[in-house]
Amino acid sequence: MNPEPDYSAAYVVIRTTAGREGFGLAFTVGRGNDAQVAAIEALAPLVIGLPLPDVLSDLGGFSEMLTGDSQLRWLGPYKGVIHMAAAAIINATWDLYGRVEDKPVWRLLAEMSPQQLVDLVDFRYLEDALTPAEALEILEQAQPGRGARQADLIANGYPAYTTTPGWLGYTDDKLVRLAKEAVADGFDHIKLKVGADLDTDIRRLGLARETLGPAARIAIDANQAWGVQQAIEWLEPLARFDPYWIEEPTSPDDVLGHAAIRDAVAPIKVAAGEHIHNQVMFKQFLQAGALDVVQLDASRVAGVTENVAVILLAAKYGVPICPHAGGVGLCEMVQHLAMFDYVAVSASTDGRAIEYIDHLHEHFVDPVVIRDGRYLAPSAPGIGAEMHRHSVDTYRWQEDGP
Amino acid sequence: MNPEPDYSAAYVVIRTTAGREGFGLAFTVGRGNDAQVAAIEALAPLVIGLPLPDVLSDLGGFSEMLTGDSQLRWLGPYKGVIHMAAAAIINATWDLYGRVEDKPVWRLLAEMSPQQLVDLVDFRYLEDALTPAEALEILEQAQPGRGARQADLIANGYPAYTTTPGWLGYTDDKLVRLAKEAVADGFDHIKLKVGADLDTDIRRLGLARETLGPAARIAIDANQAWGVQQAIEWLEPLARFDPYWIEEPTSPDDVLGHAAIRDAVAPIKVAAGEHIHNQVMFKQFLQAGALDVVQLDASRVAGVTENVAVILLAAKYGVPICPHAGGVGLCEMVQHLAMFDYVAVSASTDGRAIEYIDHLHEHFVDPVVIRDGRYLAPSAPGIGAEMHRHSVDTYRWQEDGP
Repeated sequence: MNPEPDYSAAYVVIRTTAGREGFGLAFTVGRGNDAQVAAIEALAPLVIGLPLPDVLSDLGGFSEMLTGDSQLRWLGPYKGVIHMAAAAIINATWDLYGRVEDKPVWRLLAEMSPQQLVDLVDFRYLEDALTPAEALEILEQAQPGRGARQADLIANGYPAYTTTPGWLGYTDDKLVRLAKEAVADGFDHIKLKVGADLDTDIRRLGLARETLGPAARIAIDANQAWGVQQAIEWLEPLARFDPYWIEEPTSPDDVLGHAAIRDAVAPIKVAAGEHIHNQVMFKQFLQAGALDVVQLDASRVAGVTENVAVILLAAKYGVPICPHAGGVGLCEMVQHLAMFDYVAVSASTDGRAIEYIDHLHEHFVDPVVIRDGRYLAPSAPGIGAEMHRHSVDTYRWQEDGP
Repeated sequence: MNPEPDYSAAYVVIRTTAGREGFGLAFTVGRGNDAQVAAIEALAPLVIGLPLPDVLSDLGGFSEMLTGDSQLRWLGPYKGVIHMAAAAIINATWDLYGRVEDKPVWRLLAEMSPQQLVDLVDFRYLEDALTPAEALEILEQAQPGRGARQADLIANGYPAYTTTPGWLGYTDDKLVRLAKEAVADGFDHIKLKVGADLDTDIRRLGLARETLGPAARIAIDANQAWGVQQAIEWLEPLARFDPYWIEEPTSPDDVLGHAAIRDAVAPIKVAAGEHIHNQVMFKQFLQAGALDVVQLDASRVAGVTENVAVILLAAKYGVPICPHAGGVGLCEMVQHLAMFDYVAVSASTDGRAIEYIDHLHEHFVDPVVIRDGRYLAPSAPGIGAEMHRHSVDTYRWQEDGP
């Protein structure tokens, strides 16, 4: 589905009169980045001039103001370009908040009280699945061990898996070589792209299983290539290679379709999330028993604030989160959400891993650090989306090319 | 939800080298129109330079090319700003096609063969609900009476209902006066906005029922105001006034929520569609038994082409369409879809009506004509979205105001 990406981003800098800055971005794959920028510019007048203490003391209200604007919500509501624009601004605001408090965002979240976290959530459309009281209970139950888990995280990091070996364009030799390198680098979980040609998928998945042995987790990712019945049929001859999960087997809007596929292909898990566009959709995927793995994205839903709701929904339904990453700066941002989940919500890393791709990290001031197949907990304040000034200046879009 | 709309549109003109023109638009409620324009500009390079015969002979492929672009689909996929941009372009192309064939679009569609209509549909994500063979069968079954229904339509028009009396800001006196005028104008079906305050809703709905008598259809529209349980509770004291349908009781993404509300509030019908963003969502609303009324919109989904799929899905599940209109030019465009449905798909107007609001028609070259509560079938070629040059020149957005 993404044969020729041209990795891009609409980059947001929020600057206070006192000279503080917060950084966020909306990732795109090239064409359309201008539309993403235009949507951010449409939201900007709602933000410029707000007193910082008012915003930081009510980030739930700030998010509702941005996503609920009576005119702009027509463009969504809560989806697509305008929602990702809100995400970029909201993440920049959390970045700023982290800098004000001198904490990485994962720790900022993990040190908020259960009630403060519940106050971030817009429950308007969620209460048939998760009430504020239930959310509070989930958070209070996880409170006792927060300190120990935070120490564990700082000492040992958080599990990662890698998509680096698995792109469709790679030769078989390159696939095998990169899979071996992944193991040597400490990964026991990789991901392959599938869905273009069945024979190729059988051959590649067989090679990967042969290379990695029976214990490794090999996830596969169809990037929405199939219809519901087609997904079920395509997966049949792949099942003998024991794929760990099938990611995006069909339209990311198709709750009922994912549920039907999950019923049919178990024990292969069903994963989705990078295109699940808001908390109402995640709610239904969980209500319908359509997902084994919640692949939340840093800026598809409305940033950190809405992701707190998604993480609480996942906890309510006992489904692990394995955040989507890659792109531009997604690894940097999304690690904060997974680490917060571990310390303060699910209290577990079982069945959980953050996607990792070794790509474009050199442009970020605080790039992710991976050791032995794990994300090390970031210590720099903020959310990690700040790019080097040199990178911004070099790759800023200009009509006649960069 | 829309307290202060500033009705706007991103207006598309497709011009051929031979000087022919086609007109389409994406309606917005003000802020964000620039983002809508930017998305259309992002799609424009995919269209400019295409040979017209290639486009018109494969409008299904044209639509898949626009909505499936490997980079732009990241911004959706199939939703929000980028999808409405595709809708504006696709509708402009249908408008051009109508002009080439010298037919209004409803007649252009109604005179296509069943196979030509099936070829318009992208079945990738639909086949678990509707196969090409089933779609063909629906269309073939409706073929015998096409001529008689076309003649009936030209003679008698198509049923309408009016939202003119029911806006939340109106005084009780104005509501009663406008409801009486609606009856005098031939309408037996009106709609009131609800959801801001329960006591007000009880009073206004009581007044409307008293004014119109027990036989009139009085629909109510909550514009997404409620959560699922809240909707059910709010509707309880309104039920005694026999509302015909409740429109958008909750999030337009909430298939399962609408199904739960429908179960609880029957015999009040549940209606939605103006924000249901694509055919995969309509598919699920129908699969889940979540809707009594499909309120398709001219340019929320990808224009005429995707609406053919929505109309076929509705026919498969036996659910009537009552298109959403109002806004800017929506009445002008959407009438073509309802009339096509009557002539060539459902073969019925039972339980069907097109929304009508007496607003902004003066800006259109071929404005809708309403007589005795019915839309008269348009005879001018195209889809009706062309605005007067004077209106475009007068209201074109400029930085320092129109």
